[in-house]
Amino acid sequence: MYINETHVRVRYGESDRMGYAYYGNYPLYYEVGRTEMLRTLGLSYKEMEDSGIILPVINLQSNYLAPAFYDDLLTVKTYLRELPAVRIRFEYEIYNSKGEKLNYGETTLVFTNAVSRKPCRPPEYFMQRVRAFFK
Amino acid sequence: MYINETHVRVRYGESDRMGYAYYGNYPLYYEVGRTEMLRTLGLSYKEMEDSGIILPVINLQSNYLAPAFYDDLLTVKTYLRELPAVRIRFEYEIYNSKGEKLNYGETTLVFTNAVSRKPCRPPEYFMQRVRAFFK
Amino acid sequence: MYINETHVRVRYGESDRMGYAYYGNYPLYYEVGRTEMLRTLGLSYKEMEDSGIILPVINLQSNYLAPAFYDDLLTVKTYLRELPAVRIRFEYEIYNSKGEKLNYGETTLVFTNAVSRKPCRPPEYFMQRVRAFFK
Amino acid sequence: MYINETHVRVRYGESDRMGYAYYGNYPLYYEVGRTEMLRTLGLSYKEMEDSGIILPVINLQSNYLAPAFYDDLLTVKTYLRELPAVRIRFEYEIYNSKGEKLNYGETTLVFTNAVSRKPCRPPEYFMQRVRAFFK
Repeated sequence: MYINETHVRVRYGESDRMGYAYYGNYPLYYEVGRTEMLRTLGLSYKEMEDSGIILPVINLQSNYLAPAFYDDLLTVKTYLRELPAVRIRFEYEIYNSKGEKLNYGETTLVFTNAVSRKPCRPPEYFMQRVRAFFK
Repeated sequence: MYINETHVRVRYGESDRMGYAYYGNYPLYYEVGRTEMLRTLGLSYKEMEDSGIILPVINLQSNYLAPAFYDDLLTVKTYLRELPAVRIRFEYEIYNSKGEKLNYGETTLVFTNAVSRKPCRPPEYFMQRVRAFFK
Repeated sequence: MYINETHVRVRYGESDRMGYAYYGNYPLYYEVGRTEMLRTLGLSYKEMEDSGIILPVINLQSNYLAPAFYDDLLTVKTYLRELPAVRIRFEYEIYNSKGEKLNYGETTLVFTNAVSRKPCRPPEYFMQRVRAFFK
Repeated sequence: MYINETHVRVRYGESDRMGYAYYGNYPLYYEVGRTEMLRTLGLSYKEMEDSGIILPVINLQSNYLAPAFYDDLLTVKTYLRELPAVRIRFEYEIYNSKGEKLNYGETTLVFTNAVSRKPCRPPEYFMQRVRAFFK
């Protein structure tokens, strides 16, 4: 298993009429979580795309336990619990600065050839970085 | 059961680097779906909020079968399959103009007192409109 | 001069903590305005891009006279006042359903070759459609 | 004059079909810039709102010199050049990590009583913090 923590601050434009971070922003926060996780592994999502592999999301689940508010500094904990194959699944937990768990969820993405738009195996350099955490 | 169809066109700002509608926009499309469904029932989400009842989302699930692209005119089909109680669950299907199913998902929301921020029963006028479809 | 009207409804996710449509959403509304204007001229922004010409924005100005609120059905009036050359300038006015002018602004975009990313002249079919309105 | 620098990384969801950060995201980046500037002055935009003063934007101008791309780590330089009165004007410059200036712009906001929604003077504690930089 590999775990990473990163932070996002709720922007005014992400708040809604209830004063809450709009529920539709959590996929963005999850994106930040998984991108920063990969970066700590020395893996750049952007470079992978530039090399011809894209990672569209095929499943998203999100559970909202308590609201995040404007200007809250959130901790996004991202978990990689299984060795990726054609699919890669990330789990997330979001906490506010008091340590309250506000949200948890997951996304499943598919390694996809950018030209053929067909599913493919993850690049070997990707697997090498990740395998170290699944022994 | 009550079903409603509405349309959203994918904006340029909603497209991403892959040329797809970004996965984080689907919660917005679902929001449009349920708001317009309620409107066809003579129910205004906004007026309900103004009268002191808010409806935060507690669960979101979304499955991405095929991408929507910039400028696609999408059909959002919204289903209310169960009589709401404290919770109300909407299901969604999203189709492109060729009739291809691109996405399906659901959201669960909780009727909540805007002042106490405690769960509450749906207003009686709301239930009256909805009940007619669950006989 | 060519004028077009289209409509956008303020989404919940576009509202902010003040209950207003967040100021950062107006560029999206302007985008809808100019895209729909072009569509009424038989011009598809998407097809132009697919044919190798992109239109990045180089200048945006927006003046906020009064707030738009969640669920407001806005009228976006888009004006093309000058025959486009390498640059094309659109002006916008946004009204609520009471006819109150809430916002006005403009954007300037540059016809750009998608491969070289250099400015270029608008395609001839584009100019043909537009010229009719500038005699 | 008071100047502050902060950083934002372009999210995937903020990129568009051209691979650029969508022009409509810059108002969000400007918001981050001014919020973080106020924070370094010991001023919380959120607390000011909670104390009954809101700051709606009345004018936005943005000039796009070169695109920002997905995953770019941007520097947002925010300038307060004039002592605020009922209005406060922020200027911004956005640079990529190579030091290239990508964008500059400004926003004007109005101190507004949250209840009456009428313009008002900035709170005295606000002016005290700011005045030190305008001698």
